[in-house]
Amino acid sequence: MSLFPGKYRYENEEHDNLGVDWVIQYQFEDVDQTQAIEEFRTLIHDLEEAGFRTQVRHGYGASLIICIRLPRDRLGHMVHKSRVKDWLFAISHTLPAEEEDAIVEAEHPAEELRSVYHALTWQKELGGAGITPGCGKWKNITAAFPLHNTSANSELLRKWSRSTGLTVNDLDTIRALFGENVAFYFAFIHCYSMFLIFPAAWGVFCWFYFGPYSVTFAIVNCIWCIFFVEYWKIRELDLSFRWGVKYIGELKVDRPQYVWEKEVRDPITGKIERVFPAWKQLLRQLLLLPFASVATAALGTLIVVTFAMEVFISEVYNGPFKGYFEFLPTVLFSLSLPTISSVLNGMATRLTDYENYRTQDQYDLAQTQKTFVMNIITSFFPTLLTAFVYVPFGAKIVPYLDIFNVTGFNSSEIQTEFKVNSARLEQEVMYLSVTAQILNFGEEFVLPYVKRWLRQKWRAYRQKHSDHGHVRSRSKATELLLVDSEEESTLMNRIRNEADAEKYNVQDDILEMCVQFGYLALFGVAWPLVALGFLVNNWLEIRGDFFKLSLECQRPSPIRTDSIGPSLQGLEFLTWLGTLSTAAIVHLYRSQVEDVKLSSLLLTILIAEQTYLATRFAVRTGLEKLCSDSVRRNEARRYNVRKGYLELYWRSMANSPTSSPSRVRQQRVRFNERVDVYSSATEESHDSDENGKTESDQIEKNSDILRGSHREARFWSGHQGTTADAGVKLIQALNTKKPDRGKDFKSKAGKKID
Amino acid sequence: MSLFPGKYRYENEEHDNLGVDWVIQYQFEDVDQTQAIEEFRTLIHDLEEAGFRTQVRHGYGASLIICIRLPRDRLGHMVHKSRVKDWLFAISHTLPAEEEDAIVEAEHPAEELRSVYHALTWQKELGGAGITPGCGKWKNITAAFPLHNTSANSELLRKWSRSTGLTVNDLDTIRALFGENVAFYFAFIHCYSMFLIFPAAWGVFCWFYFGPYSVTFAIVNCIWCIFFVEYWKIRELDLSFRWGVKYIGELKVDRPQYVWEKEVRDPITGKIERVFPAWKQLLRQLLLLPFASVATAALGTLIVVTFAMEVFISEVYNGPFKGYFEFLPTVLFSLSLPTISSVLNGMATRLTDYENYRTQDQYDLAQTQKTFVMNIITSFFPTLLTAFVYVPFGAKIVPYLDIFNVTGFNSSEIQTEFKVNSARLEQEVMYLSVTAQILNFGEEFVLPYVKRWLRQKWRAYRQKHSDHGHVRSRSKATELLLVDSEEESTLMNRIRNEADAEKYNVQDDILEMCVQFGYLALFGVAWPLVALGFLVNNWLEIRGDFFKLSLECQRPSPIRTDSIGPSLQGLEFLTWLGTLSTAAIVHLYRSQVEDVKLSSLLLTILIAEQTYLATRFAVRTGLEKLCSDSVRRNEARRYNVRKGYLELYWRSMANSPTSSPSRVRQQRVRFNERVDVYSSATEESHDSDENGKTESDQIEKNSDILRGSHREARFWSGHQGTTADAGVKLIQALNTKKPDRGKDFKSKAGKKID
Repeated sequence: MSLFPGKYRYENEEHDNLGVDWVIQYQFEDVDQTQAIEEFRTLIHDLEEAGFRTQVRHGYGASLIICIRLPRDRLGHMVHKSRVKDWLFAISHTLPAEEEDAIVEAEHPAEELRSVYHALTWQKELGGAGITPGCGKWKNITAAFPLHNTSANSELLRKWSRSTGLTVNDLDTIRALFGENVAFYFAFIHCYSMFLIFPAAWGVFCWFYFGPYSVTFAIVNCIWCIFFVEYWKIRELDLSFRWGVKYIGELKVDRPQYVWEKEVRDPITGKIERVFPAWKQLLRQLLLLPFASVATAALGTLIVVTFAMEVFISEVYNGPFKGYFEFLPTVLFSLSLPTISSVLNGMATRLTDYENYRTQDQYDLAQTQKTFVMNIITSFFPTLLTAFVYVPFGAKIVPYLDIFNVTGFNSSEIQTEFKVNSARLEQEVMYLSVTAQILNFGEEFVLPYVKRWLRQKWRAYRQKHSDHGHVRSRSKATELLLVDSEEESTLMNRIRNEADAEKYNVQDDILEMCVQFGYLALFGVAWPLVALGFLVNNWLEIRGDFFKLSLECQRPSPIRTDSIGPSLQGLEFLTWLGTLSTAAIVHLYRSQVEDVKLSSLLLTILIAEQTYLATRFAVRTGLEKLCSDSVRRNEARRYNVRKGYLELYWRSMANSPTSSPSRVRQQRVRFNERVDVYSSATEESHDSDENGKTESDQIEKNSDILRGSHREARFWSGHQGTTADAGVKLIQALNTKKPDRGKDFKSKAGKKID
Repeated sequence: MSLFPGKYRYENEEHDNLGVDWVIQYQFEDVDQTQAIEEFRTLIHDLEEAGFRTQVRHGYGASLIICIRLPRDRLGHMVHKSRVKDWLFAISHTLPAEEEDAIVEAEHPAEELRSVYHALTWQKELGGAGITPGCGKWKNITAAFPLHNTSANSELLRKWSRSTGLTVNDLDTIRALFGENVAFYFAFIHCYSMFLIFPAAWGVFCWFYFGPYSVTFAIVNCIWCIFFVEYWKIRELDLSFRWGVKYIGELKVDRPQYVWEKEVRDPITGKIERVFPAWKQLLRQLLLLPFASVATAALGTLIVVTFAMEVFISEVYNGPFKGYFEFLPTVLFSLSLPTISSVLNGMATRLTDYENYRTQDQYDLAQTQKTFVMNIITSFFPTLLTAFVYVPFGAKIVPYLDIFNVTGFNSSEIQTEFKVNSARLEQEVMYLSVTAQILNFGEEFVLPYVKRWLRQKWRAYRQKHSDHGHVRSRSKATELLLVDSEEESTLMNRIRNEADAEKYNVQDDILEMCVQFGYLALFGVAWPLVALGFLVNNWLEIRGDFFKLSLECQRPSPIRTDSIGPSLQGLEFLTWLGTLSTAAIVHLYRSQVEDVKLSSLLLTILIAEQTYLATRFAVRTGLEKLCSDSVRRNEARRYNVRKGYLELYWRSMANSPTSSPSRVRQQRVRFNERVDVYSSATEESHDSDENGKTESDQIEKNSDILRGSHREARFWSGHQGTTADAGVKLIQALNTKKPDRGKDFKSKAGKKID
């Protein structure tokens, strides 16, 4: 879509998508031919019915690659329609200037692709092809995705490798390439990293001067957390206005899986709406509580058991093979965690399905919430255990761990001999902020890369093998189909690789950041350099994520959101929890752990919480007051829209006085008639407003008749002379002060008048 | 404003306002004649310049009564203008159907009076008379108010005396008579009283079965508080949409006292705006903290001292005149409180002036906030002292009170002999919920009534007296002016009385209710029957307040608000505080006060607070989910507005394709040109969007040329045959499953095709 397409295209073939908008992968590994052909034909039929141009190629193994493209005029029209819809829902405030059936060009690729996405996935009655990959009759469609814009991606990567931070233009670019929800993630991580600079520096300072568990650091850190979260909220609002996606949730279409109870026609707009009663949904959502408790129980026990074993082995056990046993807990944990969490995930999904959300967004959010809960538990529970159970009460608990009585000597001896090392928390936090981050990085970026490389190797091998195997008689034409023409081979290979690449789930990355923030908020005080470690990590993370997104994952279909979703609540929760835990940790670890009075500890926590609430309130009000600019601008735009309308309306009225839009005129409340004193200004009363109108008209006719009797008329005609003169006379008559030197003149004036 | 004015007016003369919209009282007691006449002339001149009709009569003493009336056509136009303004600011969603310079009739008296009020008080450049009673050059205008609609008032009173509760129509009627801010108060007290029914009943039940300090009651009570506050928020939103006043704050005009730093033209709307930087205001608001602490200190010490004296005298002192001394503290308190609070009020006002708010509303709110803080202290501090200091630690503290060592025997004896009666809190709460309410009622309604009656008597006496005194030579005309014609005498007397009646301040009444709610939330658990007492009281209160409003106060000028203001935050604060104090009280008083462990107490409080936060979150989310109807309806209306506009716009475009409103078109982000990959979608860039437009046009011309090289064209033309056939061939070729029974037929099909 460049100005001089021809010229440019030849420069870099490998970047050319040959105008392919979207790619569909049809897998028929385990479908028998009849059915496969049947499904494929319907697919193609539906696509072409929806106005797509299609091309088919063979994929890896028993799969087909269908390249589709929406003709530009149709695309342009869909873009226009979606803009009009945005305007109707007051998402955007600039009216599309074109006439009803206009064809416009998208502002950026994301908008274009979004329209293609709608054309592909929306139900037929909404004018789409109604193709929902992986669900229902389309369960054999294993992938449907837009092609990457490789040149733009590599360009961005190159730029970032040079620059330190992201500019707002970079964010706009990401938004233009991958849509808002991805852009919001990058905006978030960037904003967060920028904020990290302060605690990093401050942490280094405190590390040198106060060491760990310093009160100063604790307080500053907590305030910083509150400040960041509140600032991000505003930043988010800002961006959502900038990208024109605020309140976008309203206009999303129903999920195909959405079950509604009745269809009602909206009395005001006249649109048909599919209603599922809110209270039912609420009741179903209450199932979240049992779920949460089950999850907590399952994960909790797992963690506790592992923890206990670990402690037992490291501290108590002195029997044979100690060296090997050391690793046992970790191994067990990492073996059992996936299974448990997969089970829980299954439950979560079923729960979310049951909750029956109208739009895909709501569904995803609900799902994310649940994963979030589980993540919180798995990430923070172990360290919390260390901080508040193991270190303080270790000396008391540990002996009881010796259940099998494997240790030679009796527990009383242990108790005397056993000593909890209170540096352990520090070590653990260090581990979290350095080692864990590195491991995480490797897991996130290196591992998939390796896996992918291996997969390709394996495929190539199998390919060769299978060719050596059964040789089938194929027609000439088929042969032709099976080999790519050299000019499209590069593209086709890229497509095939993208087709079996992973899907990119932005919520996971957001979650990762939230957990990181959580570590800082909860345990940062134990080792002030935490923030520094995170800062370095995030510098890599931003680039790594973009690398992953653009080279290792399918290009996500550009979805519009106006927030980072439930993670925001998560952040607030973590800030709150952070304040409490920080207070507790400081209180516990500053003095000798053994001689801490419970009451004083509780008091600290209580005070900390009150301070937290107060600070949050103050910061919030303050920031809202200061950063209300984007809101103001939005209101100004709305004002303009209405102004424009009004002018247009008045103009059109000047031309044809009859054309007045349908509106409900409110009934007048009259007080002097007994009858309808209590007929109130409700919008429902259409009937009586007609005579209300006529009445007001007839009154407007004779502009200011003094209604009701001649008494009124007499009153207003008043005594002879003007009010001013009358008043002057009265003043002279009434004023009780001693006659002053101006008096006689005044009285003369008085005389003059009468 | 009735349908048959003439007929009706004669029926009840005493209700007839003779078409007087507004009354101004000009006081020249201590102004010398020259100046008085000067001021009066300018007043009349300004009024008549602004298009008012005026009549002057003598008031009580050295004062004039100026009756003013806005001619109906001018009024109608102002009403129309204000409606248009509402529409422009998106306050209302129904476009005024009339043309630009229309004359419409107000929907209800309040709207009418509001327009009169604007015409009177707005600055000249806004088209008002710029008359601001009591401030600046108009400081001698002691009162300016609309006349009561006596018939409607008495009717409402009569109706309520029969009915138990208020209907929403009653609220609409109040709104129609006195404007939204009064209506909101009545809505609030009504909603609150309805809610009280439950705790009243539940309280009686608990009183019989559990007695005071029962855990069950405590928990239910706290939950009820949370529930009520959250519900009221929604109710408020509901009403503000019903009355079309949501976000009304935006369109309020600047206060005359508002000092702005610079005038800026809004880039979007092009309106001139007077800006005072937010951060400065924020800094100034920070002065609230020292103020609050000063207030707390001042009031706190007063209370503590009185309290100490009281305790000392009642418990320790046994010397002479004990009987008389008993009353000393209370007397001292009630003597010193007014002075102290008046000083504090003065400070508060100065502070608010300094904070320099743009609109009157903001100013009033800020002022109310401060009074609120002081009220909270004075109302709750004493009881808190009793509950958490006196009763628990009395035994330890009291002896030290014997500073003057007036008691015959030494303190050690006292300590042994002295016993704190833990029933004292219960008695105090009883007093608060019964006696205090009754006293309050008397003070609020009976006292003013008596005062007023006395004032009138005194005036009559002085009148006679002065007539007997100096007889002045008066001209015939003046004589005529000094006596009312008998047909207007009733009205004039009413006017004179209303003129020196009190101003009605709705915030005071709201505050009173908040304090009451506070008592229930904080100390309700000590005596479960509290709620019952309040319920009874409020039943009277509603009617009493309306009685006061309509018969003992000037009719307030109808102001529009969309909330009960800062009291809402107050309610939330009280709910929070209530949870803590309830938890503490229950914990302290259930067991024997002496043997309470501090740690367990703190733990209880801590848990209570967490539960509070959790419950509030749950209730809020739940209610918002369930009661989102009014919001939805509002959005639907907005949708309609835009739909109407769009249709109109398209129609007008069909007629004249040139007429497109001014709008900013966003620039396109192109990725295939190196040059402007990073030119982002910012609204500011107007320049380049022209060619952007032309480009898009030229592309739209030839609908789907496959841009860029023949390669693309070749790719999409594909191999011979349709995609479907190609796909089928591929499926047959690639599908790896054992040839099934349908196989040969398939291959035939394959054959057939090529």
